Amino acid sequence: LSSPDAPRILVNGTECSSVDVTDRGFALGDGLFETIAIRAGAPRFWQAHAERLLDGCRRLAIPAPSIDALAHELECVRAGASSGAARITVTRGPGPRGYAPPPEPVPTRVVGFYPAATAPAHKPRFSLRWCETRLALQPALAGLKHLNRLEQVLARAEWNDPTIDEGIMLATDGRVVECVMSNLFLVVDRTLVTPALDECGVSGVMRRQVREIAMRSGIDTEVRRVEPAEVERASAVFLTNALRGIVLVECIGDLQYSRHEPVVEHLMDRLETLDG
Amino acid sequence: LSSPDAPRILVNGTECSSVDVTDRGFALGDGLFETIAIRAGAPRFWQAHAERLLDGCRRLAIPAPSIDALAHELECVRAGASSGAARITVTRGPGPRGYAPPPEPVPTRVVGFYPAATAPAHKPRFSLRWCETRLALQPALAGLKHLNRLEQVLARAEWNDPTIDEGIMLATDGRVVECVMSNLFLVVDRTLVTPALDECGVSGVMRRQVREIAMRSGIDTEVRRVEPAEVERASAVFLTNALRGIVLVECIGDLQYSRHEPVVEHLMDRLETLDG
Repeated sequence: LSSPDAPRILVNGTECSSVDVTDRGFALGDGLFETIAIRAGAPRFWQAHAERLLDGCRRLAIPAPSIDALAHELECVRAGASSGAARITVTRGPGPRGYAPPPEPVPTRVVGFYPAATAPAHKPRFSLRWCETRLALQPALAGLKHLNRLEQVLARAEWNDPTIDEGIMLATDGRVVECVMSNLFLVVDRTLVTPALDECGVSGVMRRQVREIAMRSGIDTEVRRVEPAEVERASAVFLTNALRGIVLVECIGDLQYSRHEPVVEHLMDRLETLDG
Repeated sequence: LSSPDAPRILVNGTECSSVDVTDRGFALGDGLFETIAIRAGAPRFWQAHAERLLDGCRRLAIPAPSIDALAHELECVRAGASSGAARITVTRGPGPRGYAPPPEPVPTRVVGFYPAATAPAHKPRFSLRWCETRLALQPALAGLKHLNRLEQVLARAEWNDPTIDEGIMLATDGRVVECVMSNLFLVVDRTLVTPALDECGVSGVMRRQVREIAMRSGIDTEVRRVEPAEVERASAVFLTNALRGIVLVECIGDLQYSRHEPVVEHLMDRLETLDG
């Protein structure tokens, strides 16, 4: 842990590099996480991340952690750094063998800080591919950033080409859902369109910010089922995630998108001025 | 670890109670496991468990562990005990933040032994319920005993009643798939029927043994889509899992099944005589 680029990690508030082998996060993927941008010395959109984490705990019946404790632990691991990435993991904690949740679970909190130097170089526009791996339709888990991420692991393993930045994932029924590490937006006839996430996908904190900006700006927004052909017809496609904000898509395979789109430029400008 | 009922656990061959917090098993559920019965001082159906684990590693592109090393580690944790349960977990090992698998992963092996005294008391026939939580259709993961087990956690959390032993899970499209901790078989007109697991479900080692016994015994067997109404019409329903073998179902809710069914009795007798 002596390198300035090494992550700094607290487990249940204690500097630690390991978790109990009986932790249900390890045994069953029984938990949730948040990936948070640190910008100007503060976690960006902290309130929205905290709300999503608490909503996830409620849906999985994991006792909610103290948000104040998490904020304090994040300050500790950040140790004065002004930028980087944080990951907060909350699991149902240790338990005996078997699926039945312990009657009185003692959740595990892992708070890690990853200095900016370890992040990939910023690229203004992304090159995308279509992934073969599809997302299963599971309303009970849809929207959650839970620890069952094998679909994303398989999808991300589909390509090694470093010129490809992201992959679009369809659901098993053929609809467009999101990218491996980002949510997806289209601009179609000056209307903002993003796939509904009530049957699968991760409901991103940055996606929520962009929807709120669009609403306040009077931009028509549709959250609904999206077909692949619509992505190909869109005048612009962009991605959102907690670390990168809005990223324009340059191309999906051979299909090129224009560099300038007024709706996206407006959203990007407005997002930059938000302090959250 | 001084109690005779405490599990004994090796992590990568070393007595250890923790795993690295950056392990992809903990961060992403990126791994597999096997639950194995120890009977008469040996792991039961070891070869079939090893084959399923290796098949899972191949499908997830996790470098295969040495089966000899796992067998040796299991002998160590068993420490001469003649019966109990073992759990072997294999993950893609530690990695940096993000979904992309490390180019040269170093898998983590966890081998644990749980003495028989911690197992629930044997019950000859099980009482079942129908679960609300459904299984998503995901051919890319179907059949695998992987670490993404939130569906089972939610399903098992649906009941606290200690008189209920298991819950039947449907897929999101309404078909019958399996139970939370077991595979499911029906006897319909003297034919053995078990749900196909090519779109979801765990392909159990005991399910495979039962199918092989049925084939050798000349019992007609169908592996296909099963509807809930068919379960209710069956002359017998039974479950299979690695620890309990075959367990007859006494009732599903208010629906009672008869105590004796010649096909099931034949399968149970034949299974008992197998040394595997």
